[in-house]
Amino acid sequence: MKKFFLTLALALSFGAMIATAQVVPSENNIPESEYPMVNLETRQASFRINAPNAKEVLVDICSKRYPMTRDEKGVWTATTDPLVVGFHYYFFLVDGVQVCDPSCETYFGCGRLASGIDIPESAEESAYYKFNKDIAHGQVRECQYYSAIEGKSRRCFVYTPAEYDKNTDKKYPVLYLQHGMGEDERGWSQQGKMANIMDNQIAAGKCVPMIVVMDYGNCGHIFGAKKGERMDQFGASFTPVLLDEIIPYIESSFRVYTDKDNRAMAGLSWGGHQTFQTVLNHTDKFAYMGSFSGAIFLDTSKLKEAYNGVFADSEKFNKDIRLLFLSMGSEETFGADRLSKALSDIGINNTYYSSPGTHHEWLTWRRCLNEFLPLIFKK
Amino acid sequence: MKKFFLTLALALSFGAMIATAQVVPSENNIPESEYPMVNLETRQASFRINAPNAKEVLVDICSKRYPMTRDEKGVWTATTDPLVVGFHYYFFLVDGVQVCDPSCETYFGCGRLASGIDIPESAEESAYYKFNKDIAHGQVRECQYYSAIEGKSRRCFVYTPAEYDKNTDKKYPVLYLQHGMGEDERGWSQQGKMANIMDNQIAAGKCVPMIVVMDYGNCGHIFGAKKGERMDQFGASFTPVLLDEIIPYIESSFRVYTDKDNRAMAGLSWGGHQTFQTVLNHTDKFAYMGSFSGAIFLDTSKLKEAYNGVFADSEKFNKDIRLLFLSMGSEETFGADRLSKALSDIGINNTYYSSPGTHHEWLTWRRCLNEFLPLIFKK
Repeated sequence: MKKFFLTLALALSFGAMIATAQVVPSENNIPESEYPMVNLETRQASFRINAPNAKEVLVDICSKRYPMTRDEKGVWTATTDPLVVGFHYYFFLVDGVQVCDPSCETYFGCGRLASGIDIPESAEESAYYKFNKDIAHGQVRECQYYSAIEGKSRRCFVYTPAEYDKNTDKKYPVLYLQHGMGEDERGWSQQGKMANIMDNQIAAGKCVPMIVVMDYGNCGHIFGAKKGERMDQFGASFTPVLLDEIIPYIESSFRVYTDKDNRAMAGLSWGGHQTFQTVLNHTDKFAYMGSFSGAIFLDTSKLKEAYNGVFADSEKFNKDIRLLFLSMGSEETFGADRLSKALSDIGINNTYYSSPGTHHEWLTWRRCLNEFLPLIFKK
Repeated sequence: MKKFFLTLALALSFGAMIATAQVVPSENNIPESEYPMVNLETRQASFRINAPNAKEVLVDICSKRYPMTRDEKGVWTATTDPLVVGFHYYFFLVDGVQVCDPSCETYFGCGRLASGIDIPESAEESAYYKFNKDIAHGQVRECQYYSAIEGKSRRCFVYTPAEYDKNTDKKYPVLYLQHGMGEDERGWSQQGKMANIMDNQIAAGKCVPMIVVMDYGNCGHIFGAKKGERMDQFGASFTPVLLDEIIPYIESSFRVYTDKDNRAMAGLSWGGHQTFQTVLNHTDKFAYMGSFSGAIFLDTSKLKEAYNGVFADSEKFNKDIRLLFLSMGSEETFGADRLSKALSDIGINNTYYSSPGTHHEWLTWRRCLNEFLPLIFKK
């Protein structure tokens, strides 16, 4: 009997050890911050905030609000249900005010700076977007340039592959990569971890070395919230800036090819919408296009009338656009599957990818980029 | 009499026009956000936040807390006293919880992400840190590298001058530039506007084209708050990372000179402390050093004993270190003036700069950098 209790005690303490080892500070925390924590096994997140004078504190994540519990010192805590893997924006609601977590990095999303937390996948699943110490790394360059159209300076981020500064005679193709509504030019390198994805693919020879340009799509505020814009106006001012200013700026500042076969555009959500608006009205300028969970509002029964009839002559389209890539998370309803099928039905070549188990979130888009890259700029 | 009233009415409406034109959205706001606003004439800031269920909301800026006033819809507003020019961190206190302004960009300072607002100087005064559309612009490159010392990846930002990609045979000197306590590797490019300062100086021929490296000084949390570190331990782990990993990484990744005459280090506040700790213990590795409002705790009566006696032989020191630059804002008490005088008294050459009217804040450090740059790497 004594032995049984000893065994039980050992088993329990071992169990506790395992549990402790599995609960770790989130990778999105600021330096030295213990909370938020993530349970690697159950995929639950635990949050904490010091708010002695607040009446009510909630944490809002993955479309659910969890009431937080106050201890005697005024520290509020909550642990979520198991969450889907990937990056999630979240907020605290302190007496009804939506605020960022002071323990966490901020990310421009939701039309403002937001807190974010990554619920990790397995090491194997996440390897493609993780830093790999054994390969060469590119750079993400912050560039300022003057926009005559807007009468002010703008900022873009430009990924250059590790080899760029070494092969000073070589030219590169260019991918223009757009964020979604309520996000900005930082989204792809911060939430999207695009530099790691690029580095890993290039090192493994999966995609060709390329330049990636991430600029502001003029859709950083939430739709209609501040300007009273109509849907067809939202972010529409970006296309002329891209065509007449950004592309010339990139082509004069970086060693890049300037023909359409070396130019691609892709975007997520509203950036997918902007990719359709831009490329399909200028098929002479881009040969590859990707829409990741794109906000595409086409009447699939009238596809041949859309974009000045670009889909009407499928043979011409299939020659002009070497890749039309459509994708979304399996758990979302942005209709990329229906659009893909409808386009196929009228003879428009396209490639469809569905991200298993993910929603309208950044893990979907990391995966979409990872699937898209190997398909472009291949000779 | 009629004419008097007409004149008065005109004067009043003209006054109102002027007033309106002088109250503008802060340049630190997120896209489309009207508030915070800045009165360009009086240098007052006005803040607004929607918080219908909060009991009390304050805004905390420049060491003063202003109670905000609630309207019938639950929107709280406050206008500050006239503020000193330059960049100020600020927070809202919503029922006692220190939160960022949802309308504003966030900046890593205060050991966490904070809101920030620039109270503008005149166009003439601020020209050196403003974007100038008529000159060429460098880049700020985000680079990831592996630190064997820390067993993980680290991130640094590297400024390269506009000419760097054009003169592919030319090598450049390097300035290692550090942030302060509670800040991180983003501080100099975001709060400090260093890229504009560099671009403007290089274009005007005031400083030589150089590479500037901004890395994380391992002092992003507020002193002792989380780790229980002693003062002499705080950020001390940065020096070996800098000497053994960052410098070799930079010298193998960028076209730079590798001798001490082409290597400088400077830092603000705790970064000034780290500059003293690093350079004065390794005078064989750096020829120029700058401390901007440095947190230097030296007993000025025992200077010759400090740093293993580096100041004991002034002739040797003055040969080893071609520039020792000390500076601070005229309104702060970090003692750079006393240190400068005490060093001069024992024959140690040094240059002192005082920023007129400014405190322990980023405008002081923008000015310090602007004064420091023309003095380094001159043949």
